Amino acid sequence: MKEKVVLAYSGGLDTTTLIPWLKETFDYEVICCCIDCGQGNELDGLEERAKLSGASKLYIENIIDEFCDDFIMPCVKAGAVYEHKYLLGTSMARPVIAKKLVEIARKEGATTICHGATGKGNDQIRFELAIKALAPDLKIIAPWRMTDVWTIQSREDEIEYCKKHGIDLPFDHSHSYSRDRNLWHISHEGLELEDPANEPNFENMLVLGVTPEQAPEKGEYVTMTFEQGVPKTLNGKAMKVSEIITELNALGGKHGIGIVDIVENRVVGMKSRGVYETPGGTILMAAHEQLEELTLDRETMETKKKLGSQFAQVVYEGKWFTPLREAIQAFVEVTQKYVTGEVKFKLYKGNIIKAGTTSPYSLYNESLASFTTGDMYDHNDASGFITLFGLPLKVRAMMLAEVEKKNLGE
Amino acid sequence: MKEKVVLAYSGGLDTTTLIPWLKETFDYEVICCCIDCGQGNELDGLEERAKLSGASKLYIENIIDEFCDDFIMPCVKAGAVYEHKYLLGTSMARPVIAKKLVEIARKEGATTICHGATGKGNDQIRFELAIKALAPDLKIIAPWRMTDVWTIQSREDEIEYCKKHGIDLPFDHSHSYSRDRNLWHISHEGLELEDPANEPNFENMLVLGVTPEQAPEKGEYVTMTFEQGVPKTLNGKAMKVSEIITELNALGGKHGIGIVDIVENRVVGMKSRGVYETPGGTILMAAHEQLEELTLDRETMETKKKLGSQFAQVVYEGKWFTPLREAIQAFVEVTQKYVTGEVKFKLYKGNIIKAGTTSPYSLYNESLASFTTGDMYDHNDASGFITLFGLPLKVRAMMLAEVEKKNLGE
Amino acid sequence: MKEKVVLAYSGGLDTTTLIPWLKETFDYEVICCCIDCGQGNELDGLEERAKLSGASKLYIENIIDEFCDDFIMPCVKAGAVYEHKYLLGTSMARPVIAKKLVEIARKEGATTICHGATGKGNDQIRFELAIKALAPDLKIIAPWRMTDVWTIQSREDEIEYCKKHGIDLPFDHSHSYSRDRNLWHISHEGLELEDPANEPNFENMLVLGVTPEQAPEKGEYVTMTFEQGVPKTLNGKAMKVSEIITELNALGGKHGIGIVDIVENRVVGMKSRGVYETPGGTILMAAHEQLEELTLDRETMETKKKLGSQFAQVVYEGKWFTPLREAIQAFVEVTQKYVTGEVKFKLYKGNIIKAGTTSPYSLYNESLASFTTGDMYDHNDASGFITLFGLPLKVRAMMLAEVEKKNLGE
Amino acid sequence: MKEKVVLAYSGGLDTTTLIPWLKETFDYEVICCCIDCGQGNELDGLEERAKLSGASKLYIENIIDEFCDDFIMPCVKAGAVYEHKYLLGTSMARPVIAKKLVEIARKEGATTICHGATGKGNDQIRFELAIKALAPDLKIIAPWRMTDVWTIQSREDEIEYCKKHGIDLPFDHSHSYSRDRNLWHISHEGLELEDPANEPNFENMLVLGVTPEQAPEKGEYVTMTFEQGVPKTLNGKAMKVSEIITELNALGGKHGIGIVDIVENRVVGMKSRGVYETPGGTILMAAHEQLEELTLDRETMETKKKLGSQFAQVVYEGKWFTPLREAIQAFVEVTQKYVTGEVKFKLYKGNIIKAGTTSPYSLYNESLASFTTGDMYDHNDASGFITLFGLPLKVRAMMLAEVEKKNLGE
Repeated sequence: MKEKVVLAYSGGLDTTTLIPWLKETFDYEVICCCIDCGQGNELDGLEERAKLSGASKLYIENIIDEFCDDFIMPCVKAGAVYEHKYLLGTSMARPVIAKKLVEIARKEGATTICHGATGKGNDQIRFELAIKALAPDLKIIAPWRMTDVWTIQSREDEIEYCKKHGIDLPFDHSHSYSRDRNLWHISHEGLELEDPANEPNFENMLVLGVTPEQAPEKGEYVTMTFEQGVPKTLNGKAMKVSEIITELNALGGKHGIGIVDIVENRVVGMKSRGVYETPGGTILMAAHEQLEELTLDRETMETKKKLGSQFAQVVYEGKWFTPLREAIQAFVEVTQKYVTGEVKFKLYKGNIIKAGTTSPYSLYNESLASFTTGDMYDHNDASGFITLFGLPLKVRAMMLAEVEKKNLGE
Repeated sequence: MKEKVVLAYSGGLDTTTLIPWLKETFDYEVICCCIDCGQGNELDGLEERAKLSGASKLYIENIIDEFCDDFIMPCVKAGAVYEHKYLLGTSMARPVIAKKLVEIARKEGATTICHGATGKGNDQIRFELAIKALAPDLKIIAPWRMTDVWTIQSREDEIEYCKKHGIDLPFDHSHSYSRDRNLWHISHEGLELEDPANEPNFENMLVLGVTPEQAPEKGEYVTMTFEQGVPKTLNGKAMKVSEIITELNALGGKHGIGIVDIVENRVVGMKSRGVYETPGGTILMAAHEQLEELTLDRETMETKKKLGSQFAQVVYEGKWFTPLREAIQAFVEVTQKYVTGEVKFKLYKGNIIKAGTTSPYSLYNESLASFTTGDMYDHNDASGFITLFGLPLKVRAMMLAEVEKKNLGE
Repeated sequence: MKEKVVLAYSGGLDTTTLIPWLKETFDYEVICCCIDCGQGNELDGLEERAKLSGASKLYIENIIDEFCDDFIMPCVKAGAVYEHKYLLGTSMARPVIAKKLVEIARKEGATTICHGATGKGNDQIRFELAIKALAPDLKIIAPWRMTDVWTIQSREDEIEYCKKHGIDLPFDHSHSYSRDRNLWHISHEGLELEDPANEPNFENMLVLGVTPEQAPEKGEYVTMTFEQGVPKTLNGKAMKVSEIITELNALGGKHGIGIVDIVENRVVGMKSRGVYETPGGTILMAAHEQLEELTLDRETMETKKKLGSQFAQVVYEGKWFTPLREAIQAFVEVTQKYVTGEVKFKLYKGNIIKAGTTSPYSLYNESLASFTTGDMYDHNDASGFITLFGLPLKVRAMMLAEVEKKNLGE
Repeated sequence: MKEKVVLAYSGGLDTTTLIPWLKETFDYEVICCCIDCGQGNELDGLEERAKLSGASKLYIENIIDEFCDDFIMPCVKAGAVYEHKYLLGTSMARPVIAKKLVEIARKEGATTICHGATGKGNDQIRFELAIKALAPDLKIIAPWRMTDVWTIQSREDEIEYCKKHGIDLPFDHSHSYSRDRNLWHISHEGLELEDPANEPNFENMLVLGVTPEQAPEKGEYVTMTFEQGVPKTLNGKAMKVSEIITELNALGGKHGIGIVDIVENRVVGMKSRGVYETPGGTILMAAHEQLEELTLDRETMETKKKLGSQFAQVVYEGKWFTPLREAIQAFVEVTQKYVTGEVKFKLYKGNIIKAGTTSPYSLYNESLASFTTGDMYDHNDASGFITLFGLPLKVRAMMLAEVEKKNLGE
């Protein structure tokens, strides 16, 4: 019996070429897996396509809800944004995909997993770290790094190679940009973006929405409710998280929200430049933060922001299945206990403009904040506070004055 | 000879009332100081007004350039934003004002400084900590906290009190919002903002610009150059920092940039809600960050972001004149050595949209970032990297598998 | 019916004096509570003493196990050490005491809690913040801060006042040092310690053990086991945590372990100097850390150390009953999942010398660590790792060389 | 003309073998460099030895003072300790050695640097990152990683290889432990240490001193002075830093100070176990910290501790020549301005026992710290302080009580 390899399969030219290549080069039985995280591609006919290309089996797994609940929501609650700009759309998807690949490999008794990520990017790291953590005994094949046995250089070579192996299928034209898409976002790299001096050519690029200039002249109010940090309703209608994100994508795309142009630092040691569209995600994170402003105390919020940045790094670096990610997530979970309430905001040409927030657990105390003093706070108390709060500065200044006096006296 | 008090004087009703009150209550000779940080108020006639009210002297000090160079720029370089939203407009101004008050107190041989900040806000802390640090021997009078001797309750009381002391001056009508303004920003508190459930009434509120809705239909490109983190030219014209901020205020105000609605955590332990307009500052900080993306390495940027948040806290809490502020500033200064280059962006209805960045010190390496591999990086190297980078995860997974096996065997 | 006050009562002169004073000054019914955290004082006869002094009731609550399990152990697991030196003995005890006082106040329907902490220390803050968090409606009386109604100045005054109110009891002589003791530690302040230039007079001071000089000439091996971060056996004998600490106190005291002389920074803004004896606690924390070295991965350990320092601050500042403390504790709890194993060490004249560690969950892999290479790691992989790990430095150096070349060319 | 390679040369068997190997394998002209950081080995006769082995030249560079002033002291001032235990003895030496190698390579016009570090350790990373940062154009040869051309497997092979190439020299016997030594420390790895379950065999191992058990029965007082964080005198005698460390090494070694047994996390992803002797360094860092307790304010100290840990990581990871190291060092430098004064302590059997500290810049204020109140602090002020400091807890507790009441009412 042949060894089995589980191949992360999209149906595109690259991963289709891998089917005959894996068979020819290593004599594997190839099991294709197409993991649907909401990338929106055509799944009809995929099975025939895979089998025609020589795969023994095709799994199509819709994991959108698992992706939303167990991967996206922890990041939203953590406020995880890499380098303060990137909402981790691709980073969050890799571990959930790897988890499914491992599950299928176990079920099938496969010895190997093969992915099509390149040798310069972050995705190879994310796939492989997840696999190592979940199934350290599985072998991993990353063809694009195997320059001795993978000699195919171009799209044309791939088509040629497929034809030679009896695969004559129609493929989409080469994408202009290098892209990754799922329910949360789409990323764009390459072309004019490769020189940071260039302005992005948004007209040719955007997929999930329009630029602020193209957005409607009239803004649109949105209301959301959250319970313990999780979105529950959108404009009054109860929905599950995946539905809320879908709906927010439509709203955000329409109003030019969540387009980010960034030079980011990859794990593999280089800067790269990309444009991300995260219309719904940007709104969801802003709405969540709007509610936290009201319901988290200062020190919890401050520590959470630091850990949220670190969470983003951990996820970006592919370290999802680690004790550190679990531990930070446990921290965050505790902070969300009272992140419950309603936020209102207006979407208008790239802006998310707050329009009011309420919560039964609001820590904002109107009588305290206003200028008339209630019984919780006496203006005299402020004097005592300042005396002690400023004591270290005063002691230091007195000491320095004394030293100076002494020095002058000498 | 009478003891002298230096009074932070604005010419408004509140601080004018303090002149007779300080004389009557403590028998001080009152020296008024109006410190101009760019608040844009009318300074003509201020001297007569102060003297008529009983002051023995009025100092008018224009410190806009010192404010920009020594207080604003360190915050810009540090990327200092309090709670990720507030650009510290008021926080940065208090220490420079206090410094001037102390200088005048020393020159005049005054024993006391009096300020008009209330007992519920942060400003009392910022003024007093700065004074303690610079002149620990000076007494401080904060009338609004002295509920035993300061019995005036309302604007009407103040006018009455002035009249009784022979001061019959025209005063502006009570501001609708409680505001603080300088070259960097204007803040708004009170009225409908006191309930976070309310949407701000921007039409009545905004002073430095318009809302995104009211901004022009056509965006506007802006080019800036920086040297070692300091802005040097705007649209090709060399200017000093204060001029650049002034110009950016005009541009930002026009395009609806930099309006922030925030529930923030005060030092004195409560949440408060305010709206800030920081049109030029928002652009300046974004442009500076755009250049840093290209010129700072990952780890320096990451550590700088953490210290920048802490810098913001230190400044917010009034601890400008402390070793910690100096030490963080020294850290930041080193990071700015190569933050030199040109940034281009477009302003459009509340958005600052990047339109290209260049620097002689760019760490972005196009040949590395693109998919064709140069001689600095072999795809095989990535395999070695991942093996070591993922080693801890793999060792752990193997250990857990072994433990499980043992447990099953038992 | 009179209002009731719950008084934190030790049986000593200070708190005994408070009984008649509370009745006389405020007409309270006084309910005394003696909370036993292992301070080792005489509880016999306490009830008669309290009643004789005018209390209506005395509660004696032994909370040693709750103190150990719910307050000490979270700190041990977190590695919480304030300013890298102080093991928080007093800080951890205050919130558990306050919790009991509140419980009794609720049970008795009291309106007020009275504690005897001074106006210069941290304890007033810890008691009062805990009470505010647990029972914001309760009034708090801190007599030593009430300089208008509390006019007693000295020990002699107190004895006098007691006699005048019919209380004629024998009191211990004034302690030479100001001390606080519980199962975890004893602190010493005052006398020669008030000048940091002085060497501590350990001979007169130490209570729980001896100096290293006085310790036995022969060291002593100790073995402990932990499960999920919690100590389970000591020298092979299973015991509950409070018993283990008791036993470790004896061992540590005998061998001169855990004596710390520190100038620390109080919450109230001043430096103070104290000596702490924490014989058992020092050993317990060292043993726990010895096991973590083997069972935690690098990044988890590193983040945990940072959060552990912050946990120490939170506890030191009296903020036990806060979301931040709960959230950090949740983080720590996750990290402890595999902190299971055995540690061996030798106690000798102030030293805790490691003598071997084992764990089924050890992340130490002997085949990896030794110089002969197994199949998990190829020396070639290191080359790839270094190429990528050092890429940012190399790109930067090349860029700087290029700029220099250009500048020379000009 | 042949290409030149600069070889990091110790005179031992390993690096001597590299001379003929480099010539034979790559046809290099070999220039040997022996960099003296205080490793205490025999330098007499080294030149003949190198030349006899085929080197064209030998440089012997004594860089002890540069090592002390520019590498050790920044770490001491920063309080840089890796994983709270390791004083970075080897980590600090690698970049200064690499710097010298690069200088000599430039002077000689060499194209390549060769070092003898293995493929499993941290040192390869430290050497190579330093070389990349200082001279990105230089080639690096790390023979032990070149498994295709480096086929020598054992000490016997090396001797054989040397003999075959006409080198017949006496070599020390194989060290029992794998060691690295310089002025600051000596490290020990291998043998019984490879199993963390084993107690170290200190008797066979220690080089710089004795165990606490073997140390004298009588302690010894030491006095040191510092100026701006730099040690200036030892027991009253002015010395330069390298002399002070030398003298402290003798004192510390005698009294059993600074022996650390640690399982640490290497950069290359594995745990390793080692014993470090850092007798003088341990004392120097403790003395420096003792002075900082008195002269640094709370917040500066706290931030410095975090950055000091990060500094340790940066140095441990070989990233000395980076902007981040420079920036943290600038932070630290500012904090040292007033770290001036005298510290006294007693060395006794592994213990460093504080015996008094003084500084003209002491922030300890005796009148504040003692129980009688001076004019800087009114006990009433503490009430105001606590009211505001505890306000967030109280507001929160009131809000929760209200919610609960409402829920009960429903």
